[in-house]
Amino acid sequence: MTPEILAQIRKIVGMDYVFTEKEDLFCYTYDGSFVLDRPKLPGVVVMPGNTEETSRIMKLAHTYGIPVVPRGAGSNLSGGSLSEQACIVMQMTRMNRILNMDRRNMTAVVESGVITGTFQEEVAKMGLFYPPDPSSLAFSTMGGNVAECAGGPRGVKYGVTRDYVLGLEVVLADGSVIKTGSATMKCVAGYDLTKLFTGSEGTLGVVTQITVKLLPMPQARQTVLASFSNLDQTAETVVEILSRGIIPSALELMDQVYIQNIESFMPSGLPLDAEAVLLIEVDGPKSSLDEQISEIAKICRNQGAMHIRCASSQEEREKLWAARRGAYGAIARNYPTIISEDVTVPRDKIPEAVRRVRKIAETFQLTIAIIAHAGDGNFHASILTDEKNSTEMARIQQALPELFKAALELGGTITGEHGVGLTKAPYLPWETGAGGMHVMKAIKDALDPKNILNPGKMFGNRSWS
Amino acid sequence: MTPEILAQIRKIVGMDYVFTEKEDLFCYTYDGSFVLDRPKLPGVVVMPGNTEETSRIMKLAHTYGIPVVPRGAGSNLSGGSLSEQACIVMQMTRMNRILNMDRRNMTAVVESGVITGTFQEEVAKMGLFYPPDPSSLAFSTMGGNVAECAGGPRGVKYGVTRDYVLGLEVVLADGSVIKTGSATMKCVAGYDLTKLFTGSEGTLGVVTQITVKLLPMPQARQTVLASFSNLDQTAETVVEILSRGIIPSALELMDQVYIQNIESFMPSGLPLDAEAVLLIEVDGPKSSLDEQISEIAKICRNQGAMHIRCASSQEEREKLWAARRGAYGAIARNYPTIISEDVTVPRDKIPEAVRRVRKIAETFQLTIAIIAHAGDGNFHASILTDEKNSTEMARIQQALPELFKAALELGGTITGEHGVGLTKAPYLPWETGAGGMHVMKAIKDALDPKNILNPGKMFGNRSWS
Repeated sequence: MTPEILAQIRKIVGMDYVFTEKEDLFCYTYDGSFVLDRPKLPGVVVMPGNTEETSRIMKLAHTYGIPVVPRGAGSNLSGGSLSEQACIVMQMTRMNRILNMDRRNMTAVVESGVITGTFQEEVAKMGLFYPPDPSSLAFSTMGGNVAECAGGPRGVKYGVTRDYVLGLEVVLADGSVIKTGSATMKCVAGYDLTKLFTGSEGTLGVVTQITVKLLPMPQARQTVLASFSNLDQTAETVVEILSRGIIPSALELMDQVYIQNIESFMPSGLPLDAEAVLLIEVDGPKSSLDEQISEIAKICRNQGAMHIRCASSQEEREKLWAARRGAYGAIARNYPTIISEDVTVPRDKIPEAVRRVRKIAETFQLTIAIIAHAGDGNFHASILTDEKNSTEMARIQQALPELFKAALELGGTITGEHGVGLTKAPYLPWETGAGGMHVMKAIKDALDPKNILNPGKMFGNRSWS
Repeated sequence: MTPEILAQIRKIVGMDYVFTEKEDLFCYTYDGSFVLDRPKLPGVVVMPGNTEETSRIMKLAHTYGIPVVPRGAGSNLSGGSLSEQACIVMQMTRMNRILNMDRRNMTAVVESGVITGTFQEEVAKMGLFYPPDPSSLAFSTMGGNVAECAGGPRGVKYGVTRDYVLGLEVVLADGSVIKTGSATMKCVAGYDLTKLFTGSEGTLGVVTQITVKLLPMPQARQTVLASFSNLDQTAETVVEILSRGIIPSALELMDQVYIQNIESFMPSGLPLDAEAVLLIEVDGPKSSLDEQISEIAKICRNQGAMHIRCASSQEEREKLWAARRGAYGAIARNYPTIISEDVTVPRDKIPEAVRRVRKIAETFQLTIAIIAHAGDGNFHASILTDEKNSTEMARIQQALPELFKAALELGGTITGEHGVGLTKAPYLPWETGAGGMHVMKAIKDALDPKNILNPGKMFGNRSWS
């Protein structure tokens, strides 16, 4: 980064929002993902305060052909927000205003740096509901959620981020600004650019504003914990509940490794003798919940559940969910490195997928714990390790492709909600085929001909054809 | 179309599936839309029997630079499936097999020529539910629904076609075949090509197979008819119901012109003294419906409803819905030409939109009837006329842009579910801006560099920048 370019950047956003010190830059070689080769320091970190500044920085980057890595809270799990040498990190967290909250139309407009959890709280104050709930919601940004198309436990009933984004303001590679979509519930005016940018991992544009739809807050919620002596039984119960026509608002599976780590960290009443538990929540009109819960309990009993516990109070419900949300933290206390994969399979393939994961763990002598948004077939196979153990890391490098192959063989995907980023770029062609890659690359080239937007992510740096 | 090319086409699909007689070709200058300038006869109509034949025809078209107009049942309302001179009409109705129905995973795979209503019936036999319900569902195809991103009354609760398409098989402009998406509930492996192709009106590829997600069939449904002496009141009631947190599965508005035409055609018990009626349906667990219906009735009473009628039997419910579905036919008996516009506004703007439509009708001395998926703010302003009346047609040509301007001024869109096609191509830039058009055109050029896929549709034939 030449001093002239840095001077121009400082002129656009002001001295206080440009960072070039090594200790600042160093942070941006990390995000929530695990990558073996530590990325090089970026050239500069810039925090634009509004769309115009974002646009002017992009224009500058475009003129000089400088790579730009857009970034929210850096919580993503696939290396999508990692810097690359000589790049501009476009840090969007300063743009954190909720611009509009429309109770009557149940829509809102936010800047991309708004924290998802904060937004949900503001929405709830109006009696409304923003369903997407990635586990990172306490710190991840709405813009980051859009870039990655974040999911979460509620996906089984409520879908994911893409199902709530109605429109976007996006700064394109050349600095021009477009608006996509509409604040209306239905819109077919041209290509669905909103959905195209959602999940494009910052490779097609920098999202500055987001219009989302909201739902009425469900009248009531109820939660059940069911434990099983057998992981296969647990997975089968998931299929059974859904095929009976019950759509819970969450349907989470945790295996023994998770249960034991959670209980030793924050005792939550999870049964230590279980091989797996299901955490099941239903929501909706109060009058409809008891029936659903008793039906769910019946199905769990028929499937051989050891214990079934319905949360009898709000406190008990929250305690169960705190355990689920704390799962990753609990396990991180005992394992220096966790590689969290998120292969996804059709949900009736969950039992088979569990068997495959166990086989892979055995073959490569690895500890793999399973936590899953089981209702979606969305598996987080967490490889528990220590990156200092180089022989184990080598085995992991061999095991990962086996995991992705297994997911694809079962009719699934290599990533349900974490995205492609850097870590899965080599494997994306396995899923899309060369034809799919060509179409994606053609779109990328058309919108970013100089390849300055988050280069290397999704497509990797090597030939895939 | 040279005899050589026709011979090659016949060789690909067989003699029986190639049509070149004038009387056959003539049909393809019509679809569900109203266009002033009758399109010229196409060169040939081809009915491929499978993906491979579709691909081979596209390869041929690509080699010789022949335009291809993909077509389902031709029911679309924006001229999206109209032929153009010298083109190949790719008629997809032969590919009408349901390839897979997966009850446990609640997904299905269909060929693009499957009739939507037929598919819904097959799905229902398994206790499952495919919600998209365009009024054309008795004859429109799943492929056509995907191409147009069809909507319908259930959009207010269940969304539209794009919300159910998980994956596609698409034949691209050069004849290559790609698969997009995944049969899994969550998938973020690369750009969301599935949603990009959905609603792209046959300008980016020919859809041959569609994977959709299904829902459990709701346990029960209840329907209410509420009539009002005042159209504004009716519109206000829609906003009131939704902002109280009730999401009906349909929330339809019909004005006096529709009521009177329906009653004179198929007496259905609609109150002739009303200025407008709301047809409201709720669905879900049986135990939750009474409460919702009584809350809805209360809101209607508070808003000054003249009559409120809850359907007490399945027959009564069906009769009310038959009236709604027959509305277009009823009105078509009395008016030779109906121009059905579908501007959409944020739903609390419905009263204002109604006033604007009336003002426009008055200014240009037109009869405009209103039928609306009011819960979505999706308005069908039906201009009732006779195309032989050239002075009235001239006034309509002036009125239409005013209608689109009004929708945009109210924060809406020029098309909620009918698409852009030919008829709205001149107005699309008003909504997307030049920047949005440039992005769409860049994608179109990248995927179809010879511009052979449905040329003229969406982008029009003139410069928009």
